Amino acid sequence: MVWASGWRLASAVSNAGALGLLGSGSMYPDVLREHIRRCREATGKPFGVNVPLLYPSIEQLMAVIMEEGVKIVFTSAGNPAAWTGILKEKGITVVHVVSSSKFARKAEEAGCDAVVAEGFEAGGHNGREETTTLVLVPAVRQAVQVPVIAAGGIATGRQMMAAMVLGADGVQVGTRFVASEEASSHEAFKQAVLAAGEGDTQLSLKKLAPVRLLKNPFYQLVTEAEARGATVAELKELLGRARAKKGMFEGDMENGELEIGQVSCLVKNMLPAAEIVRNFREEFTRAVQHPFI
Amino acid sequence: MVWASGWRLASAVSNAGALGLLGSGSMYPDVLREHIRRCREATGKPFGVNVPLLYPSIEQLMAVIMEEGVKIVFTSAGNPAAWTGILKEKGITVVHVVSSSKFARKAEEAGCDAVVAEGFEAGGHNGREETTTLVLVPAVRQAVQVPVIAAGGIATGRQMMAAMVLGADGVQVGTRFVASEEASSHEAFKQAVLAAGEGDTQLSLKKLAPVRLLKNPFYQLVTEAEARGATVAELKELLGRARAKKGMFEGDMENGELEIGQVSCLVKNMLPAAEIVRNFREEFTRAVQHPFI
Repeated sequence: MVWASGWRLASAVSNAGALGLLGSGSMYPDVLREHIRRCREATGKPFGVNVPLLYPSIEQLMAVIMEEGVKIVFTSAGNPAAWTGILKEKGITVVHVVSSSKFARKAEEAGCDAVVAEGFEAGGHNGREETTTLVLVPAVRQAVQVPVIAAGGIATGRQMMAAMVLGADGVQVGTRFVASEEASSHEAFKQAVLAAGEGDTQLSLKKLAPVRLLKNPFYQLVTEAEARGATVAELKELLGRARAKKGMFEGDMENGELEIGQVSCLVKNMLPAAEIVRNFREEFTRAVQHPFI
Repeated sequence: MVWASGWRLASAVSNAGALGLLGSGSMYPDVLREHIRRCREATGKPFGVNVPLLYPSIEQLMAVIMEEGVKIVFTSAGNPAAWTGILKEKGITVVHVVSSSKFARKAEEAGCDAVVAEGFEAGGHNGREETTTLVLVPAVRQAVQVPVIAAGGIATGRQMMAAMVLGADGVQVGTRFVASEEASSHEAFKQAVLAAGEGDTQLSLKKLAPVRLLKNPFYQLVTEAEARGATVAELKELLGRARAKKGMFEGDMENGELEIGQVSCLVKNMLPAAEIVRNFREEFTRAVQHPFI
């Protein structure tokens, strides 16, 4: 949810009764501080911050989070042992995003309060094992005692129920909220997400760090380079810097890196975040009452 | 289910109250004829035959199927328009396996009675779009009026219920039955399936025809060739002939091609097929009564 989930989206989600998360992966520490403050002004409800642990300014980001009294932190892309203890000492609830039950056990051992089990279908950075949500959630459920939050491929209340039938205690939703009025993503990117059909995303850049991208000319360049056996160095040069910002925030649909989940093929309308949350709740309730269509 | 589902497995599944399928992809026409006859001797219940439409002796296989009075045919890997009409004229129920809603619509237009929506996590040959069962089933459900059977990632009654919450009318199960006493797969392969963990399978040979393989030395050779940009011709030469038989039927765990689904990581015991069916039924019933663990 880099370049998508700022204070507007996070506070709208929290105000609607779900847990909004600020995506700090695209933020400088001072920017994060401003988003935390604005989010707190915009909602009296709990909200959290997602932090990719491999981020270069991780020390400063974590300092901001603790200084600003954030109560819930979702960590991803890194070793949960590094920060969980420090955050827990401050009374912060810590949830770690994992792509395997091995990493789930490590997160539990590190003291995390819950894990997000994120399947192959999810947008953005993803695990190398490519385990899908349908397989990953039962595997993680068996592996740990802490609550399991399913992610990847969940854009409807019915998918939410399916994930919970598999053993999840809740779900984390990304892609559906990119197509929300409050997402800070560029309008051109939002429209591309709405237009995406099946097969329009692909896990890419596997020699670097696997990331699910919407297919565009930049993706094609990467794919051609990979097909001819490009080295890690060549791929790094091709990727360059700030590709994600260029695509998702500045709206360069040709040259930007566009991170979105497979489930974008089921997302067909731009909605206010509150309506998305309400739709989830209503469809989930109907699915519980009538599990089979 | 090539080299796994002969008359012993298919009849055991049918006798247990599910629909057993003979996998004709590994059979010469005369071998298929024998399996159909033996299957009929072994069960009075309905059973079907799965036929990959790209098989070189497709004309002869279809002739055998019609001569022997098979009532249910599952087709895959090819254009359903080629055979559906001919089979339907003989009163045969025809189900086509698809990896996208586009192909599902084509199958419906061709007159198929149902479709199997098979996700990325499934073993063996798979679609290029890599859509997972969690995303594919709702997409196919929206796209067609005929019944939808979910496949890929389903080895438990709880996964079966999740697939049906997504809109499936039933499920097709492969991997779980490879680890059955009646599967004709080589014992060494069955043991490898039981030993498989998360991340031990991968969709491979994407430049030829994508196929999910259990990781073994042959898979490693393919992966190394792909990483250095091997051409289609080089990959074809590397694959050679009869690799699947060598691995799954003859038990060559080094040089054979081993096709199995991602969900093998959840399959931990060899069981008689009847017990697998019974476990599905019991766990599904419990999941309906108590959807959330």
